[in-house]
Amino acid sequence: MNLLTRIERELEGIVATTATQQVPPLLAQALQHAVFPGGARVRPRLCMAVALACEAPDLTAPLAVAASIELLHCASLVHDDLPCFDDAALRRGRASVHKAYGERLAVLAGDGLIVLAFQSLARVAARDAARFAELFEIVATAVNAVSGIVAGQAWECEPQLDLSRYHQGKTGALFAAATMAGARAAGREAAPWRIFGERLGEAFQVADDLRDVLASVVELGKVPGRDAELGRPSAVGEFGLDGALARLDVLIEQTQSVIPPCAGAGLLRKLIRTESARLLPKELVRRAA
Amino acid sequence: MNLLTRIERELEGIVATTATQQVPPLLAQALQHAVFPGGARVRPRLCMAVALACEAPDLTAPLAVAASIELLHCASLVHDDLPCFDDAALRRGRASVHKAYGERLAVLAGDGLIVLAFQSLARVAARDAARFAELFEIVATAVNAVSGIVAGQAWECEPQLDLSRYHQGKTGALFAAATMAGARAAGREAAPWRIFGERLGEAFQVADDLRDVLASVVELGKVPGRDAELGRPSAVGEFGLDGALARLDVLIEQTQSVIPPCAGAGLLRKLIRTESARLLPKELVRRAA
Repeated sequence: MNLLTRIERELEGIVATTATQQVPPLLAQALQHAVFPGGARVRPRLCMAVALACEAPDLTAPLAVAASIELLHCASLVHDDLPCFDDAALRRGRASVHKAYGERLAVLAGDGLIVLAFQSLARVAARDAARFAELFEIVATAVNAVSGIVAGQAWECEPQLDLSRYHQGKTGALFAAATMAGARAAGREAAPWRIFGERLGEAFQVADDLRDVLASVVELGKVPGRDAELGRPSAVGEFGLDGALARLDVLIEQTQSVIPPCAGAGLLRKLIRTESARLLPKELVRRAA
Repeated sequence: MNLLTRIERELEGIVATTATQQVPPLLAQALQHAVFPGGARVRPRLCMAVALACEAPDLTAPLAVAASIELLHCASLVHDDLPCFDDAALRRGRASVHKAYGERLAVLAGDGLIVLAFQSLARVAARDAARFAELFEIVATAVNAVSGIVAGQAWECEPQLDLSRYHQGKTGALFAAATMAGARAAGREAAPWRIFGERLGEAFQVADDLRDVLASVVELGKVPGRDAELGRPSAVGEFGLDGALARLDVLIEQTQSVIPPCAGAGLLRKLIRTESARLLPKELVRRAA
């Protein structure tokens, strides 16, 4: 079974716990809709790749933490798409949760996914309590109101935006959690893996900004150009198109050099090169050529 | 220091972690606004009362779990007050979070409080890992999308409402968590304390319904009669005014008889009688006389 399939199975197993007869049927559907079918599952795949590169003796803890990270990411997408934020009608090529199930169930589905992520992580990781406390702290910090996704998103509500903290909170934090938690779940120290995750998150953010400007609705599955329309900061707005492309190259190069020593460092470097090609959509490759 | 003061200090300590310079200032204010000044802090006081009745040797774990329960309760109020749900302008006698800080920060403050509740519980309780796993499960179950607050609230979005599950999820679950977690944090078995919490939650819900119909804006700090206006089920709608008053008496009596054997059972019974008097506002007492 390949990694992506294992991640999907893990997510299916967790979300299935909310599909019992006692759960309000529309809520159960909204939760399902929020998680499946998924996007590229970039963060949990990254988490697993790091765990494997660190020679994890057992994939139970890495899979649990990877799934919790993806559930928290899905929760943030559901709330980001709400009318009061991006008012996005489409997500992953189909109706966003609030378009399909209404605003109330979108708020509740997001809340429910946050709780589900922590509850399922606690259940699995409680088997190894000492490691768990650290894993839990890594994941919670990546989404909290201090330096995580909630803080990142909240910078959009401030009259003066702190651009670096905005990107770090909105994207960098969860990428850093993916690499740190992947290493920790494999029994290694987490801290040396932070910078690798942060650089990858920044690269992902720049690539996302580039796609947002150029990609078609069909390819991206969401209306392009929303960042500019919403007056949100973006790498293209900041550096221009060519500048953003150059910045992406620099970031990808940097990620290659900050991978901590581990058995699978070579494979990780190769993975980043493959993923970078995915990050750059066809239009950009043509334009850059 | 009395219990309520200790609970406030515990909450202040936790919320203060979101008031650092790196946190978006309006988000920090919204989080503060959502938790302070508090209401009656019924759930954390109940949790502490049970822990003391069970002769907790140390109040660290009880306080941590009591605070996490209150933070989750505050999160649910912030999201419940959103325009898409109750559209409440007032809460605890002043502007609701979305009225004071806007809808986006209200969504984020709710999300942030959920994460904060679990993160702070994990930090403190990790010192006693075995007990922690169980405490965490009790608290998470009380708010999750299966049988907790999220599920309870979601019944309002269904064409066919399951009244018993609605009340159990919206109110009973967190009351049950308060009693169960209070006992568990004191080193006792949690399960025998469930029914006591559930009955108290039901009593609280009936009393809240009664207040909603009769209390004045000044006394309650929110516009009365919202349940009926919103077409929500209420004990008064179901049983009539006299029926609801009688039901409340029965429930209070029942709670007295389901307290599990413990050193402080007598004090708990006394506490319930005192609290019941608080639950019934002046108008009701006059009317019932």
